[in-house]
Amino acid sequence: MNAPLGRLADSLTLPQPYLLFLGDTTEAGYAKTAFGLADWAADRCVGEWSAPGCTVSTGLPRLSPADARAAGARSLVIGVANQGGVIGDTWVAVLVDAMEAGLDIVSGLHTRLTSVPALVEAARRTGRRLIDVRTPPPTIPIGNGRKRSGKRLLTVGTDCALGKKYTALALHRAFRERGIDADFRATGQTGIMIAGGGVPMDAVVSDFEAGAAEMLSPDAPDDHWDLIEGQGSIFNPAYAAVSLGLLHGSQPDVFVVCHDPTRKVILGMENFALPSIEEVIDLTVRLGSRTNPAIRCGGVSLNTSSFDADGAEALMAAERDRLGLPVADPIRGGPGFAALVDAILA
Amino acid sequence: MNAPLGRLADSLTLPQPYLLFLGDTTEAGYAKTAFGLADWAADRCVGEWSAPGCTVSTGLPRLSPADARAAGARSLVIGVANQGGVIGDTWVAVLVDAMEAGLDIVSGLHTRLTSVPALVEAARRTGRRLIDVRTPPPTIPIGNGRKRSGKRLLTVGTDCALGKKYTALALHRAFRERGIDADFRATGQTGIMIAGGGVPMDAVVSDFEAGAAEMLSPDAPDDHWDLIEGQGSIFNPAYAAVSLGLLHGSQPDVFVVCHDPTRKVILGMENFALPSIEEVIDLTVRLGSRTNPAIRCGGVSLNTSSFDADGAEALMAAERDRLGLPVADPIRGGPGFAALVDAILA
Repeated sequence: MNAPLGRLADSLTLPQPYLLFLGDTTEAGYAKTAFGLADWAADRCVGEWSAPGCTVSTGLPRLSPADARAAGARSLVIGVANQGGVIGDTWVAVLVDAMEAGLDIVSGLHTRLTSVPALVEAARRTGRRLIDVRTPPPTIPIGNGRKRSGKRLLTVGTDCALGKKYTALALHRAFRERGIDADFRATGQTGIMIAGGGVPMDAVVSDFEAGAAEMLSPDAPDDHWDLIEGQGSIFNPAYAAVSLGLLHGSQPDVFVVCHDPTRKVILGMENFALPSIEEVIDLTVRLGSRTNPAIRCGGVSLNTSSFDADGAEALMAAERDRLGLPVADPIRGGPGFAALVDAILA
Repeated sequence: MNAPLGRLADSLTLPQPYLLFLGDTTEAGYAKTAFGLADWAADRCVGEWSAPGCTVSTGLPRLSPADARAAGARSLVIGVANQGGVIGDTWVAVLVDAMEAGLDIVSGLHTRLTSVPALVEAARRTGRRLIDVRTPPPTIPIGNGRKRSGKRLLTVGTDCALGKKYTALALHRAFRERGIDADFRATGQTGIMIAGGGVPMDAVVSDFEAGAAEMLSPDAPDDHWDLIEGQGSIFNPAYAAVSLGLLHGSQPDVFVVCHDPTRKVILGMENFALPSIEEVIDLTVRLGSRTNPAIRCGGVSLNTSSFDADGAEALMAAERDRLGLPVADPIRGGPGFAALVDAILA
């Protein structure tokens, strides 16, 4: 059954496996989504393809849309963003070709696929779907606050863009490696592509924000964990509404605070100091206890990418002593990260 | 310049004066919007009109759409809601007639005006607008947290639907009576119709919630007050996202807590106790200080409609003693309400 053009399906699931599309990109920085998919969803990516002029590669096999379809691919994912988030002219012919080969098109760009007439015409003609992951599903209920079964973890942050998605993904991988039944629940466009579904929480109408979060992590077996990708920060003057609706609706048992020790002010807002980790813990417990009185902080995920190995370990040790909590950098892993996982499961 | 069909104009303003439309209503309870407009915007209502079978009246003169247009009316406002919020079959002919007489149509019903083909056709033919006040304006910026000039008050609450709009309107009237330059800033559909403009905050996409609140109360002279209608409650598990975005973006200098002493649980959520007034004050100061460190509680607006005069006065006196703050019922007015206004202005 096909979803309406341009919408995630009611089931919140994307057609997988994927063929990754790299556009005509010449700088790896613009292909972050493709690299994220190759890192976290390689088992669901059959290969990569590009438009003329492209010079970057994820290392996956190069497959034409027809070959990818023959290898089982069900959609082509636009894995690059150029400046302005537009759909490049040289891309359109490739995307039409992909639809003719039987692939749906998945995009997280600002420009909607459905705003490009040639793509809409090709989708109608071929019966393929144009799926914008920035568009929320059509049927989101108002939140009801009912306690759901199963366990939930939410990554929160001192600000935007400092590792909440990465932390939830790394915890998901670690949980699975320990044999724990767990799902990564995605709330942003890249996460949704990696998970193959989710809800773009920042695009949901405010009245439905908590309801969307409730929908994202439904009732589950008692020993099942949902590892939920956080958004924004309850201290961010622009985005706190998203963060609070997600916190209330997620009703997490455990949260992990994500922080970048080099960041001193809110991204793009020089007059707003970054909150301390302690402030984030305190306010998250206070607000989160409204829908889960047992909420607790499992530890801290520190982005130490600006430090060398010794510096990072010294910083994390100092933070452990200061906060009395596990502190780890999931990118570095190691015993510190294992201790964080232990504390979450304790 | 006409706004697109079905949207508030960029300027957030509705065409006034109004002709109130009462549909075929036979119970006053369904005509709350019309009565609210007659109470709070009588100077901008030229009269009322109805469909066959209507038995209620606001007391305004009965005028046909043509006569209303001749008297200066610029729009017909649907001032009633029937069960389901639909547009009654008998109404359509009246609404078409009103457009032919030169009136735009304004509605806050769940059913969009633009979903009724006969109305869309008549709007195209006559060049009139179909304005759904539940639809936010098209151009809302992301919040920036910048401190704006002028003074702001926000009504907040222990829950939904217990007097936040009424309190802001009563304060607006009191401020104007004292010669203070003030605007009522509407955030819900009835308030928007009364004010002649505003932003339906619960319909704004979450990422833009704080930005919408910033847009609603722009820079103003230093001695000007914006009296902002609150929405929901930061303690409401379904709607707190709306409330927090509105609080951050409004950056109020003063807030007034609205409370109904007979309500013990959140409306429609029996497992959620109503927060205390003190809890609302404490958390509002904590969250609101993010965008206005000088935020303070001006007092409490108590809905005492279930009490007789003596009982209400005794309750308010006890609450004043307990909280050490002005406590008043704006519907009862009197010296208690004057003291609340004094405290806000102090």
